[in-house]
Amino acid sequence: MNDTIATILKHRSIRRFSDQPLADSQLKEYIRAGQMASSSSFIQAVSVIRVSDSANRAKFAKLAGGQPYVESAPEFLVFCADLSRNRDRIRRDVAAEEPDFSWTEQFIAATVDVALFAQNVVVAAESDGLGCCYIGGIRNDPEQVTELLALPDLVYPVFGLCLGYPDQDPAAKPRLPIEAVFHQNAYPERGETDVVLDEYDAEVADYYQRRTNGKLNVTFTQQMAKQSASQTRKFMGEYIKKQGFNQH
Amino acid sequence: MNDTIATILKHRSIRRFSDQPLADSQLKEYIRAGQMASSSSFIQAVSVIRVSDSANRAKFAKLAGGQPYVESAPEFLVFCADLSRNRDRIRRDVAAEEPDFSWTEQFIAATVDVALFAQNVVVAAESDGLGCCYIGGIRNDPEQVTELLALPDLVYPVFGLCLGYPDQDPAAKPRLPIEAVFHQNAYPERGETDVVLDEYDAEVADYYQRRTNGKLNVTFTQQMAKQSASQTRKFMGEYIKKQGFNQH
Repeated sequence: MNDTIATILKHRSIRRFSDQPLADSQLKEYIRAGQMASSSSFIQAVSVIRVSDSANRAKFAKLAGGQPYVESAPEFLVFCADLSRNRDRIRRDVAAEEPDFSWTEQFIAATVDVALFAQNVVVAAESDGLGCCYIGGIRNDPEQVTELLALPDLVYPVFGLCLGYPDQDPAAKPRLPIEAVFHQNAYPERGETDVVLDEYDAEVADYYQRRTNGKLNVTFTQQMAKQSASQTRKFMGEYIKKQGFNQH
Repeated sequence: MNDTIATILKHRSIRRFSDQPLADSQLKEYIRAGQMASSSSFIQAVSVIRVSDSANRAKFAKLAGGQPYVESAPEFLVFCADLSRNRDRIRRDVAAEEPDFSWTEQFIAATVDVALFAQNVVVAAESDGLGCCYIGGIRNDPEQVTELLALPDLVYPVFGLCLGYPDQDPAAKPRLPIEAVFHQNAYPERGETDVVLDEYDAEVADYYQRRTNGKLNVTFTQQMAKQSASQTRKFMGEYIKKQGFNQH
């Protein structure tokens, strides 16, 4: 196995960082790595905002649900889906008619662009020994994020990312069995993967028991039931539409 | 610069492959790499379907807009956003009430999960000397894809991926200047990045002229205007809703 794959396979989220800062040149190398990811029809629908202002960092930590590492991590980046840049350029230089980025398709394409870009940043950073933690919690309050970062329409914050040198060494969480995820020629019949998923439920329960000295005993399915009941962020549809995406 | 970052920075889409097949163990290693990507609240909302059936490969090549490498590539994978697996398990084992995955938030989370996973697959494969090409064109006819792969509700195909050993060595396309993409503390004011974007337009026009011996002379902005006018896939919103996602 080569070093790149070894790096990817040992990924775990890091939530405690040393004080060692990143060099600007280093951070820019990771952003360049992000830019080299593929982009749907080459739209390059990504903007990254580095939040260095400490008052705003504190606000982000709070709105993300009280995640203190958002405030203290050496770097905190917000990854945005951005069709505004292209729209403005087309308006200025080309358009006979107003370009239309209001369809669900373009919402998907821009969102995918952001995630491909960010994952390159993460793998690049981890290959240099850094640790990362995605912060989906910024979607708790997208309106406030939009205000804090002065995001125009056709831009929305998809997730944040904490970045720095690790000051902890957590174990990787066990993933779904590959048989539950990887299929040949067709999606499996209902029930076909029950056995491996039952085994996985037991494995996850065991993982949490060991990690919490027996305090937490929860299967993957139980965890997902709780998660689905709590984290619907029902305001997201309206917010996304207000930003000009996903209108129809 | 380490090897992983060097691999990422030299990415370009590969559309012509040698006949050399991938070993099953090798492909599974890349899928494992995909699984190790972060997942929003650990929902692991990804299913990957390997299309080896040659009749279906031909159908995919056609529906993706006549991309012959979809038929001929050693491997063709379809990456799906999948909340069906978790929904079925919760229904069976836990739920007092039906789990609700119908919100835009969950549509975003599942879509992001798929892209993070796939980008790990791409980087892992490229680190072994393979080449890849994302096939967003499968969204030309998501209904047919759904039928061909027997996708249930709460599953949708986000993109395909061709995979194999390269039989070409294209140059990487120039990306946007980092100053247009990477910002500090706030989104730039309108017009702030005009100079670098003008330079980029000229650079892209030059790139296409060189690549086509002067036949194609188009700036990035002109390319985006054309793309936005042609590729709205207006049926996507209805299709996604029919699959149970993004209802409100």
